[in-house]
Amino acid sequence: MENGSSQSWRFRGNEELNTASGITIRGVLTSLMQSLNQSDPRPTIPLGHGDPSVFPCFRTTPIAEDAIADSVRSAKFNCYSPTVGILPARRAIAEYLSRDLPYQLSPDDVYLTLGCTQAIEVILTVLARPGANILLPTPGFPYYEARAAFSHIEARHFDLLPEKDWEVDLNSVEALADENTVAMVIVNPGNPCGNVFTYQHLKKVAETARKLGILVIADEVYDHLAFGSNPFVPMGVFGSIVPVITLGSISKRWIVPGWRLGWLVTSDPNGILRKSGIVDCIMGFLNISSDPATFIQGAVPQILAKTNEEFFSRIISVLRQASDICYDRVKEVSCITCPHKPEGSMFVMVKLNVSLLEDISDDMDFCLKLAIEENVIVLPGVTVGLKNWLRITFAVEPSYLEDGFARIKAFCQRHAKKQ
Amino acid sequence: MENGSSQSWRFRGNEELNTASGITIRGVLTSLMQSLNQSDPRPTIPLGHGDPSVFPCFRTTPIAEDAIADSVRSAKFNCYSPTVGILPARRAIAEYLSRDLPYQLSPDDVYLTLGCTQAIEVILTVLARPGANILLPTPGFPYYEARAAFSHIEARHFDLLPEKDWEVDLNSVEALADENTVAMVIVNPGNPCGNVFTYQHLKKVAETARKLGILVIADEVYDHLAFGSNPFVPMGVFGSIVPVITLGSISKRWIVPGWRLGWLVTSDPNGILRKSGIVDCIMGFLNISSDPATFIQGAVPQILAKTNEEFFSRIISVLRQASDICYDRVKEVSCITCPHKPEGSMFVMVKLNVSLLEDISDDMDFCLKLAIEENVIVLPGVTVGLKNWLRITFAVEPSYLEDGFARIKAFCQRHAKKQ
Repeated sequence: MENGSSQSWRFRGNEELNTASGITIRGVLTSLMQSLNQSDPRPTIPLGHGDPSVFPCFRTTPIAEDAIADSVRSAKFNCYSPTVGILPARRAIAEYLSRDLPYQLSPDDVYLTLGCTQAIEVILTVLARPGANILLPTPGFPYYEARAAFSHIEARHFDLLPEKDWEVDLNSVEALADENTVAMVIVNPGNPCGNVFTYQHLKKVAETARKLGILVIADEVYDHLAFGSNPFVPMGVFGSIVPVITLGSISKRWIVPGWRLGWLVTSDPNGILRKSGIVDCIMGFLNISSDPATFIQGAVPQILAKTNEEFFSRIISVLRQASDICYDRVKEVSCITCPHKPEGSMFVMVKLNVSLLEDISDDMDFCLKLAIEENVIVLPGVTVGLKNWLRITFAVEPSYLEDGFARIKAFCQRHAKKQ
Repeated sequence: MENGSSQSWRFRGNEELNTASGITIRGVLTSLMQSLNQSDPRPTIPLGHGDPSVFPCFRTTPIAEDAIADSVRSAKFNCYSPTVGILPARRAIAEYLSRDLPYQLSPDDVYLTLGCTQAIEVILTVLARPGANILLPTPGFPYYEARAAFSHIEARHFDLLPEKDWEVDLNSVEALADENTVAMVIVNPGNPCGNVFTYQHLKKVAETARKLGILVIADEVYDHLAFGSNPFVPMGVFGSIVPVITLGSISKRWIVPGWRLGWLVTSDPNGILRKSGIVDCIMGFLNISSDPATFIQGAVPQILAKTNEEFFSRIISVLRQASDICYDRVKEVSCITCPHKPEGSMFVMVKLNVSLLEDISDDMDFCLKLAIEENVIVLPGVTVGLKNWLRITFAVEPSYLEDGFARIKAFCQRHAKKQ
């Protein structure tokens, strides 16, 4: 057979995918990483993403590692998993989450997913229908936008209000919703804002959603990572006001994002999601989806039961200390300001004043030059929906944070407009 | 807020999902499992699915278990994975697969996936475009149909020919293809047929696909599980005739389907897939997809490098013994016949002659009554595209296989038409 150049091929790539995937944090961070100056001998300071697992002070508990090793060595979990996940893991998660709820979740309310990421994929796929729209926060987590685009759901954006502790602008939620609105998303503790919603505010969110007849998707992947004055309150507390889909994971609280073990939970004591066909569709989609590794599922009961309070309080204490350093150091850099001291999650949003800088056009330009000149990675706010803001991760080893801010300060001084 | 029954909700489930998920093996097996007679004291004999991991004789090698435990305890792999998978794992897989190819794969040809399942999802999503069709084998693996339906790709079916060792009917491939055909799928070693294609036949497949200008998707999840006269030849051997997407996994050769570690590989020495935008789209879709657990990726180099030949030959020998038992016992049951002795994978297709049975209407009825009366699970052929055939898994503990066939024989005698 000749290898003629006249051969033509009938396949080509699906162009929609480039659109849907163009706006992920992963994509932006990857391109920033590629801009780093390889000849700079200093270590890269990664203040861009929510994964502190490489730092010794954020190492997970040996109890979790042992649970994995025990599970794989038992040879009981080399098999395929059921579509919804194995029962002991679903039961353990139902019990774990029910501790903070006024009602008891059943294992049947719990669907195991590949981290919170797949839980987002599942619910956005399940809610898709021609003409549907969904209300997403700005700033937010752009994976929702990517998955909404892939499922042809229109994304409409409501504001989180920096001057009101990043609370939801409920007036804009009401103004945006129409008869094709299916759900609203909240992320609590907040990514990217580092805020923690109060009980009262969450109740208002529930009442607004009920009035509009829409579902609340509560992304609680940072659950319990609260170290300010507001305690973490799960949205499921208001499940009798409005049906809630709770998304969570062991990724953040146990600092193991690479383990890919999350959940989608129907926090819906009135059974509305079952009646409306949502539950059947979740199972239908999971039937054609991949599952978390079975032996990781097998480790879940032991991880949830045995992890001690000391581990959790140590992580909270490191996060509090790091957020304090971050907040203080931001004050020392004239071109950035922080409207709200972080009290949860691993991030804070700071406002960038480009008018004070000589040769920086916007947040993307700032982050690119910072990567090239200082080997510091920070996420441009435009990625999360706020141009000329920055999302800074404080969940890194404190010495790295100090080093990172020293470089940011030097960078800003070097680029400051001359008087 | 009153809990009035007049409340109306604007969300509902995406009905497409029920259609797409209705035809999976998982779905059919689940409903058969639910039909089992709980009061029957005999153990259930699972001859329906390709997962022998629960049987002691199919236990994976301790080398693989140790690799996982070492990886998780190293704390190096608790982090998020890059979109395409970690480099050491991609490099190890490229080297492992290149041993059987006339050219060297690069790590950049390898994308890590959640088992072979997600690899199928990726390639069918990437190839989707309005009007596209794909050529799938009958009998086949219905997850392809489910994913094609979800991506709105039309599935067209070519036959595998039982009288010709289940070879592809290349005339029907040519007759089915048109200008909207993007690819054809082969599964080798064969699921559900248990056949292994010859070098010469695979070369003809490649030449046919080249003539038609379509991609070959080679599902080699059962790679190296060949125990008859034909050695396993990877389709990538013919990658310079036609671009090949090779799908694989450690699931079957290492008997760890629950570990969810697979790969999609571009076996394409001429770089056609890069030029046609397929490679960019694969990366785009992986960017919005979930990854295999990072510490499982971290274990891959050790698993591939250290597993010894003894483990592989033991598994092959158990499979050969089991397939012999299966083939011999089928001959003792008058209403089923096997056109082709299995020589690979974990399955065989047998033809059911319902005219010899009194009160069995078809293969589905046969499997349902067999489950209820004998606690034996066998997959109805209609699930894989051949009505009034059965797919029997011989990859079970040999004593189970003997027990299972004794019950099938008793069942068939009890339901046989009286002379």
